Amino acid sequence: MKFLPLAFILLISASCSAQSSDSATLAHFFEAALTHNKAYSDLHDLCKQVGPRLSGSAGAAKAVTFAQQRMKDAGADSTWLQEVMVPHWVRGAKEEANFNSAALKIKQPVAVCALGGSIGTPAGGITAKVIEVKGLGQLQKLDPLDIMGKIVYYSEPFDPAIRETFEAYSKAVQQRWAGAMEAGRYGAVAVVVRSMAQHIDDYPHTGSMGYVDSVPKIPGVAISTKAAAQLSDALARDKDVTFYMKTSCDILPDVKSYNVIGEIKGTEHPEEIIVIGGHLDSWDLAEGAQDDGAGVVQAIEVLRLFKTLGIRPKKTIRAIAFMNEENGVKGGKKYAEWVKKGSEKHIAAIESDAGGFAPRGFSLEGDDALRARIQKNWKPLMDKFEIGDLDNQGSGADVHPLVGSCVLLAELHPDSQRYFDFHHSARDVFENVNDRELEMGAAAMASFVYLIDKYGLGK
Amino acid sequence: MKFLPLAFILLISASCSAQSSDSATLAHFFEAALTHNKAYSDLHDLCKQVGPRLSGSAGAAKAVTFAQQRMKDAGADSTWLQEVMVPHWVRGAKEEANFNSAALKIKQPVAVCALGGSIGTPAGGITAKVIEVKGLGQLQKLDPLDIMGKIVYYSEPFDPAIRETFEAYSKAVQQRWAGAMEAGRYGAVAVVVRSMAQHIDDYPHTGSMGYVDSVPKIPGVAISTKAAAQLSDALARDKDVTFYMKTSCDILPDVKSYNVIGEIKGTEHPEEIIVIGGHLDSWDLAEGAQDDGAGVVQAIEVLRLFKTLGIRPKKTIRAIAFMNEENGVKGGKKYAEWVKKGSEKHIAAIESDAGGFAPRGFSLEGDDALRARIQKNWKPLMDKFEIGDLDNQGSGADVHPLVGSCVLLAELHPDSQRYFDFHHSARDVFENVNDRELEMGAAAMASFVYLIDKYGLGK
Repeated sequence: MKFLPLAFILLISASCSAQSSDSATLAHFFEAALTHNKAYSDLHDLCKQVGPRLSGSAGAAKAVTFAQQRMKDAGADSTWLQEVMVPHWVRGAKEEANFNSAALKIKQPVAVCALGGSIGTPAGGITAKVIEVKGLGQLQKLDPLDIMGKIVYYSEPFDPAIRETFEAYSKAVQQRWAGAMEAGRYGAVAVVVRSMAQHIDDYPHTGSMGYVDSVPKIPGVAISTKAAAQLSDALARDKDVTFYMKTSCDILPDVKSYNVIGEIKGTEHPEEIIVIGGHLDSWDLAEGAQDDGAGVVQAIEVLRLFKTLGIRPKKTIRAIAFMNEENGVKGGKKYAEWVKKGSEKHIAAIESDAGGFAPRGFSLEGDDALRARIQKNWKPLMDKFEIGDLDNQGSGADVHPLVGSCVLLAELHPDSQRYFDFHHSARDVFENVNDRELEMGAAAMASFVYLIDKYGLGK
Repeated sequence: MKFLPLAFILLISASCSAQSSDSATLAHFFEAALTHNKAYSDLHDLCKQVGPRLSGSAGAAKAVTFAQQRMKDAGADSTWLQEVMVPHWVRGAKEEANFNSAALKIKQPVAVCALGGSIGTPAGGITAKVIEVKGLGQLQKLDPLDIMGKIVYYSEPFDPAIRETFEAYSKAVQQRWAGAMEAGRYGAVAVVVRSMAQHIDDYPHTGSMGYVDSVPKIPGVAISTKAAAQLSDALARDKDVTFYMKTSCDILPDVKSYNVIGEIKGTEHPEEIIVIGGHLDSWDLAEGAQDDGAGVVQAIEVLRLFKTLGIRPKKTIRAIAFMNEENGVKGGKKYAEWVKKGSEKHIAAIESDAGGFAPRGFSLEGDDALRARIQKNWKPLMDKFEIGDLDNQGSGADVHPLVGSCVLLAELHPDSQRYFDFHHSARDVFENVNDRELEMGAAAMASFVYLIDKYGLGK
């Protein structure tokens, strides 16, 4: 427990009146968010009343109505829906899988889930011998004859030495995205991919995978990290292990859906836009609480915080709940196309899609001089609120298509250590979000928006 | 999910060779800690093999042996035990409590636990009417006749608007520490204190309380936040609610115990000491995983990280597992007395006692010029590792007694949002610690120690 002398506590109180008005405003954002906890109750309702909302599903349609209503409730001057066609992939019946070793006398059921976008297996499933590779690099080194007719098992784990978990994810996820198309090239019959997760547990983590037209399409599943360890162990002892998997997923025709947009019109420069956003769609295995219910309710909370504090922004603050980040980014691309055709001027677009954890700062995507100015002008103030970690590691998937049309792209950077315990798995539920961490992320976004609105991004 | 262009990833890799050697060393601390995960396995064993270890208990004695062995295993050149007499308070049988309203037809059992240091109730328990006050301030405003013969119920909650939870704790905890002595002054028969916790759940949180000789001693219990809400609700509707509580705790004679000390001798200035520490004792309700098993294993991990990286420090790095932080700070005071008598020169003492959460930086206690130098010289490097939040909010309870004998006192500052969900309650178990966050805290401490050792704290 911290030892804080009483004299010092008094000192803190006394010095409050000497704080700058910007500092006071930021403090009010945090106080309001932490006290009213309304992003958290929005998240509760999104998770429990709407639930899973994969693009094209009934849940996604329900989420559109929900998000528009909550934007109105939060105090948006106007709300509207932007039409966008999205993919419609369905999982079908719960997957089955096991591996089998006659030599080891093992028949082990394993937890798997189809990867998003995968075709299904034949009705009787697929059974084949397994060849294990640690990522795409190892696959390339194999004799193609060793791949033909087999199930390729991609087992590259997250690199634990990497401090920033998103960086470990970026490395390992290549095998999930491109594993089937690469293995299909050499005649593999299916792929099994170790779940994109840091820890050993029995939850498979889904996520999108791709195909190319020139290569036969083969089905792909993610396997839990615990089952992956068991499978690797069996393969180390018996090369003749066979794997059985049965999935019944399907790719249906595209569906009409929407980005949900709500804004507070700027008083001086209504044509200058500051976007804040998260994505409304989620994977189908859970409630999409961290990914990305958190981002959606935080964007709505930014509107609410401006209303609560009675701050009329000079520029227009526009909250967007983007559709279809998970398997196509159709919503983000659609919005960017629309912006290109219009006459508005986009100043900044700040996404939240890294979970509702305690905020650290922002990842920036913009020119060097701009990033240097932000660092110089605002980092000291942001540091006071522990949101001054400003790195240049790119923005988010939904705002990135605005590159060239928007001065600054950014993403809220929360603490990342626990994100991949939940991401794309059945554990991504409301109960795994901390109310205070979620609200503080929203307050951090409101703070950044406030500074951009007040001072602009010019020299 | 973050959009990180491939070109940028390549850029990161290419730029690594251009990093300074200090930056590379800090990176190695993090990589090693995150890969070998040995602080986490030490914590597992401390929690599961030793368990609760309140001062004076058999668990505390076992913990002494355990900590000394783990310091040796981590590579300490030498280890020793420093004798210290500590209080020996025992909880006795599980507490019973309920409240009763004839008017509302409620008889509600409630979750309570005796506060540390409290006397027990008579064998038949205590039953009395209840008077609710929100903190000590409200008590002072009451007519003493309204307190006489009653149970005073202190219900001041954590202030949710305060971003830093330790600050909210500091405010609310006064009623726990001084509640019985203040109420006893006016003839109250017992006190019930709302648990020091942010969230509503059914776990009572213990913690120490004090008595003064001039006032009759009355027993004190903490009530869960959920039960506190129920009790407040009942009192709002019926002023004649009675409360029953039965505790059988006792204060036994002081017991001989130990601070556990292990060090790596400095190569150039062995007489200059850098202390890193946590406290070995814990409350009796759980495993003391966050409070403060985390700090103990992190201090040991710092020794291990220097050994692992093959860095021989110039000054002596001394890990201390302090005894009795929770109810007396006898270990911290004993060490400080011993330092005053000796000829060593204490350069820095860095405590970890705020949980094994993701590190943010350090709270510093030292003169202004020193703090400014640390800020100027090292913050940019520390910011790279997201441990550059350097505030002046005091140090820790065990190192604070070194004030005047040590150039810099400090405490690791981890993210604080979840700490009070576990603190002093049955939920403070190993399973509620994240391995990566714990290890990063240790790496942060090793980083700070490395800089102090290499560059000193002079001008």
